[in-house]
Amino acid sequence: MPKPSAEPSFPTVICTVDVVLMTLKDDALHVVLLTRKNAPFAGAPALPGGYIHAQEDRTAWDAAARVLRDKTGIVSPYLEQLATYSGADRDPRGWSASIVYYALISEELLPEGREGLLLAPVAALPALPFDHGEIVALAVERVRSKSQYSSLPVYLCGERMTLPRLQAVYEAVLGEPINKVSFRRKIDELGMLEPIEGELTSGAAHRPAQMYRLRESYRRALSVVPRGINS
Amino acid sequence: MPKPSAEPSFPTVICTVDVVLMTLKDDALHVVLLTRKNAPFAGAPALPGGYIHAQEDRTAWDAAARVLRDKTGIVSPYLEQLATYSGADRDPRGWSASIVYYALISEELLPEGREGLLLAPVAALPALPFDHGEIVALAVERVRSKSQYSSLPVYLCGERMTLPRLQAVYEAVLGEPINKVSFRRKIDELGMLEPIEGELTSGAAHRPAQMYRLRESYRRALSVVPRGINS
Repeated sequence: MPKPSAEPSFPTVICTVDVVLMTLKDDALHVVLLTRKNAPFAGAPALPGGYIHAQEDRTAWDAAARVLRDKTGIVSPYLEQLATYSGADRDPRGWSASIVYYALISEELLPEGREGLLLAPVAALPALPFDHGEIVALAVERVRSKSQYSSLPVYLCGERMTLPRLQAVYEAVLGEPINKVSFRRKIDELGMLEPIEGELTSGAAHRPAQMYRLRESYRRALSVVPRGINS
Repeated sequence: MPKPSAEPSFPTVICTVDVVLMTLKDDALHVVLLTRKNAPFAGAPALPGGYIHAQEDRTAWDAAARVLRDKTGIVSPYLEQLATYSGADRDPRGWSASIVYYALISEELLPEGREGLLLAPVAALPALPFDHGEIVALAVERVRSKSQYSSLPVYLCGERMTLPRLQAVYEAVLGEPINKVSFRRKIDELGMLEPIEGELTSGAAHRPAQMYRLRESYRRALSVVPRGINS
């Protein structure tokens, strides 16, 4: 049977991926932006993105991971699909569909001094080209809502963390204080952490606290509980 | 400035939309399938779908609404993006990205006797081509989770409904009984219904019940509450 061909009579849809990579800086959510090198909007800060390379990427997820790695040097352990933005008007190059992914990363894993890379606080974004402003707003909403009942914010921490630090990270993302007792219970329930044997923080100001790390099985998949962290 | 062209060196990505349209039949969720007329998989039941027509559709949402209308005769009041399925292997025609939408509809609004249209229970789906089986599973999960805290199931009812009927619809979708008192409270909180003045059901078996309809403002947008219907 001959391979059926794609309908050739329709104008091509430009198929791209964009990545909303967020981090915590000074306990406020920031998004990683990249100064665009090419038209349209050359010189403007925008989400890292690019064309799907059909001969190279197995899936759009692969394309997003490749674009992020090649354009920012960042390998994210976790990339989740946010939504697809599409239409005739969003890109001056033509009818386009961008499959958008989001990810969280610890600030200490960001490459330092990489040309064109900047961090913008999500609460005070610069004007962004295309519909990137709207995309970032949806990503922030998704992260906040998903953080209510999952291990997602753990990706904002480094490899090792204390429970007080993790609670501060959850509080920064959710924008509200969390009761310590119910937080500890939820973290137990989520079960994504394991204590690092023999490792305690040392510091003059506080009692030493146990250090934890993310269990292997949750490095690329979320742990989820049915009821919210703060309920 | 010349209009920058899309990078021409990459093989085209086939850009399509698919729609998971669900209804309640005998109080069980069913999905609307359509017998495929063309290769690949001609003759197999599959989700209604088709190419994006860049010259005609303003957005992928428009493409989904058009495909649904043209292929099934159904105009859905509510179509929400589910996810995009993409990759080199999912369609024998080539690297493809399908932007998937889902919708709920009352069984009484389905066209009768339309050729090729069939209803399959989501709990006992036939084998579906492409990744349509996986897509339906995600859509069912999304509907169940969204029904916990929104007005979504109301689209499964006809234009007029009683509260006991609406509760039965929520219970059918969620697959669990709901406490009547907390259900009534959540429905009040959701605020998407208005009583139809002077209209009561009549029937021998039950006390007459007030008839309600969906408020105008919620015909195309969900009402959402922060805590679940059944909590």
